[in-house]
Amino acid sequence: MKLQPYIHKAQYYETDQMGIIHHSNYIRWFEEARVYFMDEMGFGYRELEKINIVSPVLSAYCEYKSMVRFGDSVYILPSIIRFTGSKMTISYRILDVETGALRAAGETHHGFLSSDGRPVSVKRENRYVFDLFSKIVNQELWELPDR
Amino acid sequence: MKLQPYIHKAQYYETDQMGIIHHSNYIRWFEEARVYFMDEMGFGYRELEKINIVSPVLSAYCEYKSMVRFGDSVYILPSIIRFTGSKMTISYRILDVETGALRAAGETHHGFLSSDGRPVSVKRENRYVFDLFSKIVNQELWELPDR
Amino acid sequence: MKLQPYIHKAQYYETDQMGIIHHSNYIRWFEEARVYFMDEMGFGYRELEKINIVSPVLSAYCEYKSMVRFGDSVYILPSIIRFTGSKMTISYRILDVETGALRAAGETHHGFLSSDGRPVSVKRENRYVFDLFSKIVNQELWELPDR
Amino acid sequence: MKLQPYIHKAQYYETDQMGIIHHSNYIRWFEEARVYFMDEMGFGYRELEKINIVSPVLSAYCEYKSMVRFGDSVYILPSIIRFTGSKMTISYRILDVETGALRAAGETHHGFLSSDGRPVSVKRENRYVFDLFSKIVNQELWELPDR
Repeated sequence: MKLQPYIHKAQYYETDQMGIIHHSNYIRWFEEARVYFMDEMGFGYRELEKINIVSPVLSAYCEYKSMVRFGDSVYILPSIIRFTGSKMTISYRILDVETGALRAAGETHHGFLSSDGRPVSVKRENRYVFDLFSKIVNQELWELPDR
Repeated sequence: MKLQPYIHKAQYYETDQMGIIHHSNYIRWFEEARVYFMDEMGFGYRELEKINIVSPVLSAYCEYKSMVRFGDSVYILPSIIRFTGSKMTISYRILDVETGALRAAGETHHGFLSSDGRPVSVKRENRYVFDLFSKIVNQELWELPDR
Repeated sequence: MKLQPYIHKAQYYETDQMGIIHHSNYIRWFEEARVYFMDEMGFGYRELEKINIVSPVLSAYCEYKSMVRFGDSVYILPSIIRFTGSKMTISYRILDVETGALRAAGETHHGFLSSDGRPVSVKRENRYVFDLFSKIVNQELWELPDR
Repeated sequence: MKLQPYIHKAQYYETDQMGIIHHSNYIRWFEEARVYFMDEMGFGYRELEKINIVSPVLSAYCEYKSMVRFGDSVYILPSIIRFTGSKMTISYRILDVETGALRAAGETHHGFLSSDGRPVSVKRENRYVFDLFSKIVNQELWELPDR
């Protein structure tokens, strides 16, 4: 399976007075790409909600490699690197669309809760979602256009 | 009645690449000061919620007079300038704490809804809140320290 | 001249606890669409910068007509409604992509400054830009796909 | 040396549709507290700028322990845990002001650059700042009021 990569164009309101994108925005970009990724997989927030599962962020990490500036377009490429049914780790790479240069890399860690806040096992709750997510662990899903 | 003015210190993450506070933040500062103001009046979001009233923003306006920079402290001074029980208009002045210079002025316009989304009249729903808000229309409530 | 409309997909981090997009984000969306619009016209921030002109926001206004929710896509359609060479007013409509419903309408007002902060007349500084902007005042430039 | 802890009151615009503070804001709160901390130490951004040093964020990490809600006040307590003159690591704890409960913990990692972007050694550039920062590594500087 190959998916079109998620692209974000860096906005003016995301810059700071150093003339670069403020580092806090990358955490938001991870979320943008994660939402897109889940949607593409057929399991967006709305679908998860329908089966009464939410997936809160337990931790977030970002390493800033090189600067993104206003007007730059970047690929944000999430990849599930661990999925146990009760925990999930997603890693991200942010690449400049034009040059392919690595701008940032990071990770978010997630749990799964029922809508009333109890930890749930996706394996027990929904075998289809469990199998789907399990199958794509560590798969390279993003098809970048040749430069 | 006199109240201590609300002070916001401009944050680094609020700057943009022009080296000033991004204009979108002023709309957020209006909200900060409005929340503080309502709290000081004894009718914060939580109290309104308890009587099942929400007050959505119907419109927002801001005029930028002079720049605010990272590290500057500003007073944000809301004032109810119209209150009918079903509509409310709040005006705001943003002043530099150090010099008193006017940084921005604006207005937000609000309705009142019951928790199920129906327009309500505060006059009918809660006479105490109605009287309280009516009494402070166009009152100068903020006591600025002498410079 | 007809242009493809700018589309923004409402992000999770843009929601608030009322379950809708926080009203401050619309001011940012206006900017997104304005930047896109200027780029499409061949006069993005970078081109203006090259001729040493910046165009600060002097005021911003937004009227909230109906709610935008997480995952909704909206068109943001700017239109120059006044342009004198020293001042410019841009109006915006935000429409739901799926239904065409009006979500918000607003306006921003801009000046033109040289890079050292002096007010400039675009008419004198750059006749080409002046003519270009003058010609599109009140033109309907956005071609929405039929639904 | 003991310092007053930095307090942030969680704003409405910081909430998301889960009814809690969106996780991206904690990265901004770390910055707020870091700026405050540096200011209190006599080495705020402006002072560092005067000696031509900037300190970019190389990485950021946050672990979310329990939820912060609109209106909650939290202490944000930074602590320099490593300082070599060319690198610095700051850890943070976020505690509920009312209950003292741990809301989040995190870390940012920083470099030091001259204003033209070259890595610099604070030890060589400014012995006073070097000594000051070295002395407070792993010191508990925050004096929380008794509850």
